[in-house]
Parts: sequence; C-alpha cells; structure tokens
Amino acid sequence: MTDLSFSYLSELRCSKCDERYDADTLQNLSRCCSAPLLAVYDLTALRDELTPADIASRPSNLWRYHELLPVRDPRFVRGFDEGMTPMFGLPRLGEAIGVPRLLVKDEAPLPTGSFKARGAAVGVSRAAELGVRRLAMPTNGNAGAAWAAYCARSGIEATVVMPTDAPTITRSEAALAGASVTLVNGLISDAGRMVGELVGRGGVFDASTLKEPYRVEGKKTMGLEILEQFGWRAPDVIAYPTGGGVGLIGIYKALLELQTLGWIGSKLPRMVAVQAEGCDPIVQAFERGEDEVQAQQDTRTIAFGINVPSPLGGRLVLEAVRATNGTAIAVSDEDLLSYIGRCASMEGLLPCPEGASTMTAVAALRKSGWISESDEVVVLNTGAGNKYADAVAVELPIVQRDASLVDAQ
Amino acid sequence: MTDLSFSYLSELRCSKCDERYDADTLQNLSRCCSAPLLAVYDLTALRDELTPADIASRPSNLWRYHELLPVRDPRFVRGFDEGMTPMFGLPRLGEAIGVPRLLVKDEAPLPTGSFKARGAAVGVSRAAELGVRRLAMPTNGNAGAAWAAYCARSGIEATVVMPTDAPTITRSEAALAGASVTLVNGLISDAGRMVGELVGRGGVFDASTLKEPYRVEGKKTMGLEILEQFGWRAPDVIAYPTGGGVGLIGIYKALLELQTLGWIGSKLPRMVAVQAEGCDPIVQAFERGEDEVQAQQDTRTIAFGINVPSPLGGRLVLEAVRATNGTAIAVSDEDLLSYIGRCASMEGLLPCPEGASTMTAVAALRKSGWISESDEVVVLNTGAGNKYADAVAVELPIVQRDASLVDAQ
Repeated sequence: MTDLSFSYLSELRCSKCDERYDADTLQNLSRCCSAPLLAVYDLTALRDELTPADIASRPSNLWRYHELLPVRDPRFVRGFDEGMTPMFGLPRLGEAIGVPRLLVKDEAPLPTGSFKARGAAVGVSRAAELGVRRLAMPTNGNAGAAWAAYCARSGIEATVVMPTDAPTITRSEAALAGASVTLVNGLISDAGRMVGELVGRGGVFDASTLKEPYRVEGKKTMGLEILEQFGWRAPDVIAYPTGGGVGLIGIYKALLELQTLGWIGSKLPRMVAVQAEGCDPIVQAFERGEDEVQAQQDTRTIAFGINVPSPLGGRLVLEAVRATNGTAIAVSDEDLLSYIGRCASMEGLLPCPEGASTMTAVAALRKSGWISESDEVVVLNTGAGNKYADAVAVELPIVQRDASLVDAQ
Repeated sequence: MTDLSFSYLSELRCSKCDERYDADTLQNLSRCCSAPLLAVYDLTALRDELTPADIASRPSNLWRYHELLPVRDPRFVRGFDEGMTPMFGLPRLGEAIGVPRLLVKDEAPLPTGSFKARGAAVGVSRAAELGVRRLAMPTNGNAGAAWAAYCARSGIEATVVMPTDAPTITRSEAALAGASVTLVNGLISDAGRMVGELVGRGGVFDASTLKEPYRVEGKKTMGLEILEQFGWRAPDVIAYPTGGGVGLIGIYKALLELQTLGWIGSKLPRMVAVQAEGCDPIVQAFERGEDEVQAQQDTRTIAFGINVPSPLGGRLVLEAVRATNGTAIAVSDEDLLSYIGRCASMEGLLPCPEGASTMTAVAALRKSGWISESDEVVVLNTGAGNKYADAVAVELPIVQRDASLVDAQ
C-alpha cells in the first residue's frame, strides 16, 4: 500500500480522456491519446489531514507543499532550498499604466535565476526516485540550465539540446553542471526532434516539457505560493508569459486543488496567457475559438523563453484561460523592451523579456478596459533580467583614470 | 525621545577611538580619526523585549531582524522582500576536499543576484529616511547594480562609477535602473577618487563602502541569518571572500551583538578572510602581524569583486579575524576557476568567482591541517555565477537543424 504521509499522489490521468495510469512507474505521454499525463492526489484524505496553518509553520521553500507534490520519499529531495519567491507591489509602474494594485511574483531568486528551477526541482527529484539514471530534453535555455543543475545535484546524467539563439549564459550553466550540451542552428522544435530520436534508441528518459508528468507539478507551486501569499484568496488577474505554457497550466492546477481542499473559495483569478507577436499560436487559437493549437513557422521574438511554435500543452492552456474567464494576448518586442526599461527605472526591478511581456500585456488590457482600475493584478517575472546581457545592453561612456565627474555635471 | 519600537539604534561610534556620534543625522567617516562609524544598538533594552521565537514567527526576509537594523520607520523599507537566503550542504565537494560538513550560504537569490543587495537594502532605506536625495559611489560592479536598484525603488538619484573591467551586465543593471553610470579605465580606487571629488562639491551623499555607516548593518544580516539557520549556535569556520571586507566585518558584528543578547554562547566561528593572490593586502598585513593594511598597486584577479587594493575597513577585518582565531589566505585565479567547475559539476551550484575562492581556500586550509575533518565549515557564495558570463564561458559544438544526436553517441 502506498505511504501517503509525505506525498498524497495517487495516480496519473490522461489530460485528454481521463484514463488512469500508474504514478509509480516511469511515464511519458499517455498511450491512449499521446497527451500529457497529469498527477492526481488524494485530496479527500488530505483535506482532513492538512491545514493552511500547518503549511505556515514549515520552512520557506516549495517543499512546504510536499503533500501536493509527487516525491514520496524526502531523501530524494536534493535541491537548493528553493521556492517561496517574493511577491511585492510595483506601485509606480502600476500608477503609470492605470493599475495601482499591480504586483509582481518575482522568480529571479530561484536557483539558476528562473522559474524553470521549480519544474526541475520536482521533476528531477521524482525522476531520481523512479530510478532514472539518464535524461534528455530540448530547451530554450533556462530549463536546460535548471535541469542540468538539479541533475548534477541528484547524480543523473543530462543531455540538453538548445537553439544557438538561446541566452549564451544558459549554455555555460548547463555545460558546467556536467550536462552534455548540443547547440542546434534552429528552434526548440528542432531540438525536440533530436531528443525524440535519441530517446527512441532507449536508455534515456524523455524530460521534454509535458512529456513527463512532474515538471508541471513543480510549476504548480507558483500558484500555491501566490495564493498563500494572498492569505488563501485569489487576486483578480494573473498574467503569465506563455511559451510551452506549463507554468500557466500549473497555476491553474493549483487553483483547482486548493478549491477541492476548501482552502480558497469559488473566485478564481482570470488567467492571461501572454505571448509575443512573433510567436502567438495560443493567441490565434483563442481568438478563433479553437481547442487545439496550430503550429507556427519561422517564429521569432526577443523574449526567447516564449518562442515555442508548437506548444504540446496548448489545449490545456486554452482550457485554463477559458475556465477562468481569462484571455490570451500578444505583445510586440518593441513594446516589451520598453517595459524592461520602465520597470527597471521606476521600480528597480530588471525583469527578463518574458516578464516584461506580462507588464506590456497588462497595460494593453487596461487600455482596452478588460482590466479595471480596481483589479488586483499579479504579473509573473519568470527570471532574472541580468541573464539577458544582450537584450539589456546599454552603451556607456568610458573615461580615463584621471578624469573628473565634476566637469561632466 | 527616540522611538525604540522598530529599531533599537542608539548611536554611532568611531571604529577606532569609540567617540560617539549622533545616529539621526547624516554621517560619513568619523571626524576624530577619519575612520568608519559603526552603529550601536540598545541591546540591554532589547534583551528583555525580543526572543529568537519572535524572530522565527516573522516573514522570511532580512527585515525580521529590524530591531538590530538602523531604519526607524518601516515606511522607508522599500525593497524587494529580500534576505533569508538558503544555506545548504555541499556533500560531494566537501567529501572531495576532506571537509564532509561543508555548507554554503548562497547569496545568489538576492535582488540583482548578489549579497550587495543587503547593504543596499539597509543603506538606501536609511539614507532615504535621513533625507538623502542624491548619492554617489564607486563600485566593482555588483554594489552599483544593487544600490541603483534600491535607489530607483526609493526615488533617490544615484551616481555610480565603476572600472571598465567590472562585469558588463552590472553596467546595464545600474544604467537601466536610472543611475548615472561612468566607466573608468582604472581600478575601484580611481573610481573612489572621482566620487570623492564629486562629493566634495556638495549636495551628493557619499555612499562609498564604510564611508557611510549603514551598508555594514545590511551585510550584518548574513551573520544573523547563518546563526539563526544553525539554531543560534556557531559553526566552526566561516570563509568569506574579502575585498572591502564589509561582509566579514558585518558577520563579526552580528556575532558580538548576538552574544550580548545572550542568543549564542561563547563559541565564535573562526573567520577566514579569503583574498586573491593578485590582490591580497589583508593577507599580507595578517602575515606580518600588522594592524593596518598597506595599499597595493596594479592588483589583478578574475574574482573582480575582491579586487580592492586599499580596503578602508582592513583594520576591522584583521580585528575580526584575530579575535576569532581565524586566518587570512590568498588563492590563485587558476585554482578558483577550477573550483567554479568542480562546484557546478558536483553540486549543481554555479558559484561566482568570489564564492569559488572560498571553496579553494577551504580546500587549502584542510590540506594544511588548519581545518579538520570534523569542522563544520560555511563558505559564502556572494553572488550568482551566471552574472559572470565571460569568466564561465564554455565552447560548445553547433549542429545544423537536421542533425542527429544518435550519431554523436
């Protein structure tokens, strides 16, 4: 019988047809529908065992929610004490765009400087618990850096394939963590094909986005933390930079689980999927009223983390957006770049391009009236802006060592 | 009468002759000795008012120690919910160097990716409270990025001067946060001279290291956190990358205040000041048994944050090291670079060069027998390795989009 004391994980279900799968053997996509599998927890049992007060008394990291995470044996949790990132107000930027109750959930403090560490912390720990010795994944950079770091920590061999356009530093992070890193002169979809071929030969676990069921569980902790930081109530809007969309899917999953536990009421935040104009397959499907996302070609955006032309979880993103009366919106690179500078100079927070895209989207949605002045709005800054040296480079004057600042005044 | 409810700050004292100064007006170096001023708190009163249990019940950020910090009015605390960074074991690296009880206090999660955020959080908040509208400072990069960010948050105009060799990203961070940034073709000492000249003209507060009294109070929180994370007892050794040395001075100050409060016993950790062979004025003074540090010329190290040829707080660092039966040691760039890679591949943590210098030093001190196998040793990783793109760059193969990973196996 399964020990429910640390994790209340009970089974996996196909996200399309609900067919059940064993959660304690390695799984990738569902065999029935080739769709992502999602973890199910025994929330009925948990409801009687766990209270928000229990959570509050625990260490300030994402493992405080361990009953809602898939790792059964805490000895496999070998991370960096990650999670419980700060959420704070952006009063000046909020005032400037007419959203005075604007807050940011800042994911920069996570290991390797991005929210990808959440998926890696949980995904790698669970993979280690299920006996994985080697895994492979395509990445737009930050996920590769994060998974390589956690694999090093857990003693798992990692193969990472990333496009040459991915932020340069993420290559070094993954390689120095001991991963086998290949740069491909293409997009993440090309990297994905290469990984698929390698996995097909056997002996390597496929850790691609949503092709294994536990990365999304790690991302789910973003939602758990936001709701806890609001005192177990929902803000009006959460805007999320959406490439693969796992974070948005995870936040929505957190909301549903918390409702089932009775920790939050019926109000859910309206979820906003923010994409770039140069890569907006989810926005297109949303506007056409479709359930499935069509792959795009030759996509391009400076917000490289959301350059995902064919998101496997598109259907789940659309479901979350629609179920919460949310929306999907694309922003231009020019606009989001300007919000990097506005946020940095007004608030002292240098967001990553993906994070800045959410601020851009909120400004546009306020202008259109979709967001009202009284709405409490949370934007996700999914990573540290200082990892994007090229995107944020500023030209500055150089003076000689005998120069004077006084002359320049 | 001063309200002691939020801060128990009572006065400032000259670090050389103990002369008293008013803590509620702007101060720079002491007029008596041109030495740093240090903040004094009414610990006798505080001892009856505050317990470790009170601290434990507070939010997980550095302001949980507000009674031991100089800001009197919480409305001036306008940061990013910073502090309480993780401390975790480095079991494989520790095993490899013969120090199985090796831990790292990882400062990478702080805003702007380095421990400099602690000094800026407290220094800028206190400067705002005391009416500063404009400040200037020399920096080796990360401090400029941090102070610019907090100045933006607090609405203070910042002038930052940094050497051209400082990490490139820190220029952009400071400039995007709205600071006036000048790059000087020289060292931090040249930048310091330029700032001094500007400050001499009036209207600009000098926020140079230890020339204002509150940055060190922010750094002190590193010590408070380490001791709290150990359950209010001291580890055997703390190794600190030492340039200006404010962090080490701050940690030592934390230890003394906690002893006075009766929260820790008589045992103190042996403090190790780690420098680079290319810039080791404190090590030289320590080895010669001197109390004052002699300035060095043409210093050079890849651990740019500790390239401080003439540290103003050298005397205080030597005092802390000697009072705790500690030591001072210099490591080579070659060795510290190798520890960046060793830590990344063994533990998944990519340290900054300065952080890697402490691991290098601990390995050397273990070899010499100064550190024993049973010692519990904490190294400080003062910043995110991923901010040092050049220092950690790795050459990797690029393949075309139709390539196969299988061929390469």
